[in-house]
Amino acid sequence: MNWPQSVNINEVVLRDGLQLEQKLLTTDEKKIIAMELLKANVKTIEFGSFVHPTLVPQMANSGELYNKLNDTNRITLIALIPNLKGAETAAIFGVKQLNIVFSASNTHNLQNIRQTTEQSLENFRIIKEFCDQNGMKLDVSIATTFGCPFEGEVSVSQIHLIVKQVINAGANVVTLADTTGMANPRQVYELSSSLLDQFPEQTFNLHFHNTRDMGLTNILAGVQAGIRSFDTALGGLGGCPFAPGATGNVCTEDVVHMLHSMGIDTGIDLDQLIETASILERLIGHELPSCILKAGKFDRKYPIPS
Amino acid sequence: MNWPQSVNINEVVLRDGLQLEQKLLTTDEKKIIAMELLKANVKTIEFGSFVHPTLVPQMANSGELYNKLNDTNRITLIALIPNLKGAETAAIFGVKQLNIVFSASNTHNLQNIRQTTEQSLENFRIIKEFCDQNGMKLDVSIATTFGCPFEGEVSVSQIHLIVKQVINAGANVVTLADTTGMANPRQVYELSSSLLDQFPEQTFNLHFHNTRDMGLTNILAGVQAGIRSFDTALGGLGGCPFAPGATGNVCTEDVVHMLHSMGIDTGIDLDQLIETASILERLIGHELPSCILKAGKFDRKYPIPS
Repeated sequence: MNWPQSVNINEVVLRDGLQLEQKLLTTDEKKIIAMELLKANVKTIEFGSFVHPTLVPQMANSGELYNKLNDTNRITLIALIPNLKGAETAAIFGVKQLNIVFSASNTHNLQNIRQTTEQSLENFRIIKEFCDQNGMKLDVSIATTFGCPFEGEVSVSQIHLIVKQVINAGANVVTLADTTGMANPRQVYELSSSLLDQFPEQTFNLHFHNTRDMGLTNILAGVQAGIRSFDTALGGLGGCPFAPGATGNVCTEDVVHMLHSMGIDTGIDLDQLIETASILERLIGHELPSCILKAGKFDRKYPIPS
Repeated sequence: MNWPQSVNINEVVLRDGLQLEQKLLTTDEKKIIAMELLKANVKTIEFGSFVHPTLVPQMANSGELYNKLNDTNRITLIALIPNLKGAETAAIFGVKQLNIVFSASNTHNLQNIRQTTEQSLENFRIIKEFCDQNGMKLDVSIATTFGCPFEGEVSVSQIHLIVKQVINAGANVVTLADTTGMANPRQVYELSSSLLDQFPEQTFNLHFHNTRDMGLTNILAGVQAGIRSFDTALGGLGGCPFAPGATGNVCTEDVVHMLHSMGIDTGIDLDQLIETASILERLIGHELPSCILKAGKFDRKYPIPS
């Protein structure tokens, strides 16, 4: 079995991690997390989203946060957007990289952003044009890639069709997102392999939730298929509004710990990352689902009982 | 990537799952769990251990439980033993399959059963002779195979040496146990592959804890290396006395759910297994770390919000 020397981690706690939290973090609190992540050598952060503040009040200060962070040149800052309006707002704040999200499943897309998947694909082309005119990169996250909590199975051919269209329209990174934690590692391996075969020049990124404890297995399956970029959220924070009982995003420190223990580098300082997770836990005010924060690293030694 | 058609699950909740619980289950309560597991088509159960009742009061009723279960011919019932005394007690109750445990790490073995690893290997031969004379099978679990919480790394050559000696002495199943959740999937794959290369006729079984969320990745790595038998505990119950913060055994329903979603059979009825986990949760009186018990299976559908 061959393993790569390194993979990239895209830290999404400030967006997907926080967007369902009851406690709204202030801009300064978010900035603390971002600066601590920067200290841990995290290179890519999805820092917020430009959605209507009454819909997602947790993200209302995303522009203000960007203003406080954009003097750092060592980090890629990505904003999620649902539509052209979001892209326009992001442009006003000077954001340079956007990630538009829509769902492969019509039903989920209608629930989430009130568009059919076909409409979202059409909007993607319009927003891409807007981004080109404003010197912004446009990534895309395809939600419910591995299944829909309303419709069930989403066909592989449907995903291939959507991926082909967004690539033809000039997408930067394409994220395959497992919105409610339905993916299994065999499915991840097979879909990722087939997409990499079909689109060998394209950068793909994977986004998993740990709802059914398969988050780390799915990341490994992606690595084995040749994917080299993964969304993770500090502390494993996050959830899904449509799936009660769903746990959070796959946990950054748990993923980094696993990869490092296997000799796969991420460029991240794991000790500083764990320290950042404990700061987040204090700021957010409740226990995080992180394992490494509780158990420590695998090489932690215990005193021999006397 | 090739996956097997099926793997075996050895259910250890009645032993490793319960042995640190504050609430002692009665013989009848344990019997309920065992019979529900039988209804779910679980084929192998480690039902208890023959250790001194003042050391592990949770296991004091193991013989009595065996008497209530041994009329079932559809299930393999295994008892853990630490020494010859345990084997003698098990023999009195008529147990037909034993699993002796000792650690590859001297320091851990001295803490756990007050013997050096060398002494345990010598005792293994004596106990094997006793088992042969009494028509009992003898399995062996090698604790701290993937690392020791006191000593740190345990060398691959040390594991090969121990495995060779127990196989030469006639061990039935050899379990490689990750006592405190230190193993990573690369390590599991490489060690398992090298042992299967060296001892192709031997049946190996793997035992993981989910301390650092790598339990399921380690099982998959074992499957990929060619291992076809795994210890798991209903609800993910369990822990380790030497490792505070350590979570439980890898969770049976989470493992079975993952394998089935990948098209790998276990022969187990997953719905009945989940029902059994919820019975266990009520009996034990606290929340279990199981994911599937909370989130449901991956194909669970949600109503579309109105």
